[in-house]
Amino acid sequence: MEQLDKLEAHFKRLSHFQHLAAICGWDQATMMPSGGSQARADAMAELALYTHQQLTTHELHDWFSALDEQQDRLNDAQRASFREMKRQWQHASVLPDTLVKAKSLAGAKCEHAWRQQRQNNDWDGFAKNLKEVVALAREEAHIRADQKNCSPYDALLDLYEPDMTADRIDEVFGELKTWLPDTIQAVVDKQSQQTTRLPDGPFAEAQQKALGEKMMALLGFDFEHGRLDVSTHPFCGGVPTDVRITTRYDEQDFTSALMGVIHETGHARYEQGLPKHLAGLPVGKARSMGVHESQSLFCEMQLARSEAFATLICQHAKQAFNRQDDPAFHVDNFHRVLTRVSPGYIRVDADEVTYPAHIMLRYDIERDLISGKMDVDHIPDRWDHAMQQYLGLSTAGNYKNGCMQDIHWTDGSFGYFPTYTLGALYAAQLMQTMRQQMDVDGIIASGNVSPIFDWLSQHIWQRASTTSTDNLLKDATGETLNPTHFRKYIQGRYL
Amino acid sequence: MEQLDKLEAHFKRLSHFQHLAAICGWDQATMMPSGGSQARADAMAELALYTHQQLTTHELHDWFSALDEQQDRLNDAQRASFREMKRQWQHASVLPDTLVKAKSLAGAKCEHAWRQQRQNNDWDGFAKNLKEVVALAREEAHIRADQKNCSPYDALLDLYEPDMTADRIDEVFGELKTWLPDTIQAVVDKQSQQTTRLPDGPFAEAQQKALGEKMMALLGFDFEHGRLDVSTHPFCGGVPTDVRITTRYDEQDFTSALMGVIHETGHARYEQGLPKHLAGLPVGKARSMGVHESQSLFCEMQLARSEAFATLICQHAKQAFNRQDDPAFHVDNFHRVLTRVSPGYIRVDADEVTYPAHIMLRYDIERDLISGKMDVDHIPDRWDHAMQQYLGLSTAGNYKNGCMQDIHWTDGSFGYFPTYTLGALYAAQLMQTMRQQMDVDGIIASGNVSPIFDWLSQHIWQRASTTSTDNLLKDATGETLNPTHFRKYIQGRYL
Ligand SMILES: [Zn+2]
Ligand SMILES: [Zn+2]
Repeated sequence: MEQLDKLEAHFKRLSHFQHLAAICGWDQATMMPSGGSQARADAMAELALYTHQQLTTHELHDWFSALDEQQDRLNDAQRASFREMKRQWQHASVLPDTLVKAKSLAGAKCEHAWRQQRQNNDWDGFAKNLKEVVALAREEAHIRADQKNCSPYDALLDLYEPDMTADRIDEVFGELKTWLPDTIQAVVDKQSQQTTRLPDGPFAEAQQKALGEKMMALLGFDFEHGRLDVSTHPFCGGVPTDVRITTRYDEQDFTSALMGVIHETGHARYEQGLPKHLAGLPVGKARSMGVHESQSLFCEMQLARSEAFATLICQHAKQAFNRQDDPAFHVDNFHRVLTRVSPGYIRVDADEVTYPAHIMLRYDIERDLISGKMDVDHIPDRWDHAMQQYLGLSTAGNYKNGCMQDIHWTDGSFGYFPTYTLGALYAAQLMQTMRQQMDVDGIIASGNVSPIFDWLSQHIWQRASTTSTDNLLKDATGETLNPTHFRKYIQGRYL
Repeated sequence: MEQLDKLEAHFKRLSHFQHLAAICGWDQATMMPSGGSQARADAMAELALYTHQQLTTHELHDWFSALDEQQDRLNDAQRASFREMKRQWQHASVLPDTLVKAKSLAGAKCEHAWRQQRQNNDWDGFAKNLKEVVALAREEAHIRADQKNCSPYDALLDLYEPDMTADRIDEVFGELKTWLPDTIQAVVDKQSQQTTRLPDGPFAEAQQKALGEKMMALLGFDFEHGRLDVSTHPFCGGVPTDVRITTRYDEQDFTSALMGVIHETGHARYEQGLPKHLAGLPVGKARSMGVHESQSLFCEMQLARSEAFATLICQHAKQAFNRQDDPAFHVDNFHRVLTRVSPGYIRVDADEVTYPAHIMLRYDIERDLISGKMDVDHIPDRWDHAMQQYLGLSTAGNYKNGCMQDIHWTDGSFGYFPTYTLGALYAAQLMQTMRQQMDVDGIIASGNVSPIFDWLSQHIWQRASTTSTDNLLKDATGETLNPTHFRKYIQGRYL
């Protein structure tokens, strides 16, 4: 398979440039002084242009065509590698350069203006730019849909969650909608009967960092292949051999940084756990955004907010901040702190019970925006209506904390939002199976949680993109995505 | 001048990739966890290969040839830009790929083995690898010499110090040799009559860092365009819009990190002060390694070790470490601490009086190694002989702290060493002129040293590589390199 070798060599070569982009991107967010931003943006843009050229060079077309005809001569591993290279190539090469450029300009303009417009609650100004972005996203979706022979929105979904469709999401989110609003109300009522004492700050940043690193170590983060730093917006970046996670510290509330660190550690372990022998190849990358989020939410929600794990965190935190006698650090209270549910305006601040509401409303809107069923002008009304319905909150006139709160739509990343909740559902399903196969709470209580991660390594990390998400779930849990596990999990923990 | 525009666009594009290499190189030395090193090295090598290809692509040959014939139509600024692009291109393209590869392999092998061999004092093992490196360096030097029509060693010098020749260095170092050994002896005798009290540690790293940043600010370092971090080997890296300097802290001796920071700040101000309108072009880069070192040594030696500036440092250090009543921080004692002279084995630990001795002996050896006048086997004897002659120290059998102490030769960087002392000589000459034109000590005492750096900006930084080092010096000081200024400076300060 000469062409396969050539293709793999080409993609491995590309991965070296992606490595440099990942490190410089991390540096931009964590280390770079402000005056360095313009020259850095220019350098990164040049690199992006080059990697795009390399991904769309005509040679690739020939190699892919030749291999297309010989697919039956490939074994399973080769076919998977071929499929994932082809996916990347098609994603990169189907859009005409003019559209790529127009998208990039409109996105940059919209995002840049948004930073100020959001502060000013200036919906009209924002809507004007967003309309341009949506128009280009529709154009993009149609071109991608023609290539994939699917609906426009499904074509965008495929960029983040391969093989997922709006029909399937409608079905899954439809199930959620039947019980989630009532459950939220019931949880809020139940918690209003309880007294929860929030740990009182200040908590020094250095101590928070030390505690975060202790929990990372406990969760098996490999510090020989990664590190923890600070950035305005927490993320997991870098490369599998050198994973860079970030957080930001609030001296009044150490739990926000800590749970963020645990979340990013979940992402990081997936990256660190990808198979070495597939390094640099598309087939060796994480399966999807949803599967990625399932690993972070597995750590942050399934694991870290369980009673057993909260007990561990509580012990470590008590020591770290020297609060032996502080009643806020009594283990029952501490677990209540970690599992408070409170409907709010802001998605990124939401707890795991209300989070899907934020996602479902965004999904409904963006699906209809891309299909053309609705227009930008109707976003605020629809937003307000859904917020009232799901969370009992009005966002009328409050664009800033309503439909203008997220960065995602500003640069046209439609199709991304649903992956957050898909991740939560995958995570619940994985944990449900795991609990059938091992004594998860006993393992946590032992302080050595490696059997839990060995299971994830075997069923998720090591398989990378060698098979579909459906197959991953089926092989790991015996069934494809089944949203009832999430319901049982949420109602079991919170009601 | 269509070709000139094309060439400049090409080199600016290349500079974006060099930007990414600089940041990732900095990251490698300061941030990267050990497990990331192999993948990073692979990524950096891929980038180096790509930039090398871009620097040697056949189009350039055509553009340079076309422009060669039209040089009289270029104005001075265009001609300088053309000259510096051509210099880079010639340096990059004259060596056959096989030699580049052989050099890189032999260098990597020699350097890698050296780290262990040095610890084991294993000269025989090291000599075997070094012979390969020297053989390839000779081959390289001959090819470069044919291109430039000069001697082989001069061709290597040109890589670091354009237009410098061994004849000129022989002359300049010859002058130094007439007085330096006696002066060293006289300074040592004089200082042995004085009592100097070393500040007693520990000095906490955080306080050292704060003091370092205070001195950087005082020296005009622009923190919007740069930062200070820690690495095993201090350096100045990054890009002009984002200069990254490093140091390492010794809790027992704060002066080593502090004077290192001041040294690197000198390098950094040169980079930060390069002309913006020439950014990304070879003509907009620092003139040479020697001129670069002149700026760091100007800061560290000419400026910071003057009585006036030592007084400033002493005040700040006293505050930083809360040592108001510590006699080691009396200003006279503190100045003696900063100007101690002590012949020693190790170049990087040497004071400014003995430093040139370390350089001259290395220069004599490498010049004769490249010309073929001597062979690797004779290095230890020659080293020992020179150390005895210049510094009264024997390195017989002590390879580790003798001829195996430096990394430079391991990868074949012959021609680099002399630039350290050329920098010291340039710096002395610049300061001598500056003192004729302004009250340097008064300016220092005022605490606002910007007139000093405005002078350097005008005479050195802003001119970048638009003219030769000879012209820079002539325009700034009225004469080309004149080593007697260094003698007067050293004897004036130390005797
Ligand atoms: Zn996440
Ligand atoms: Zn230096």
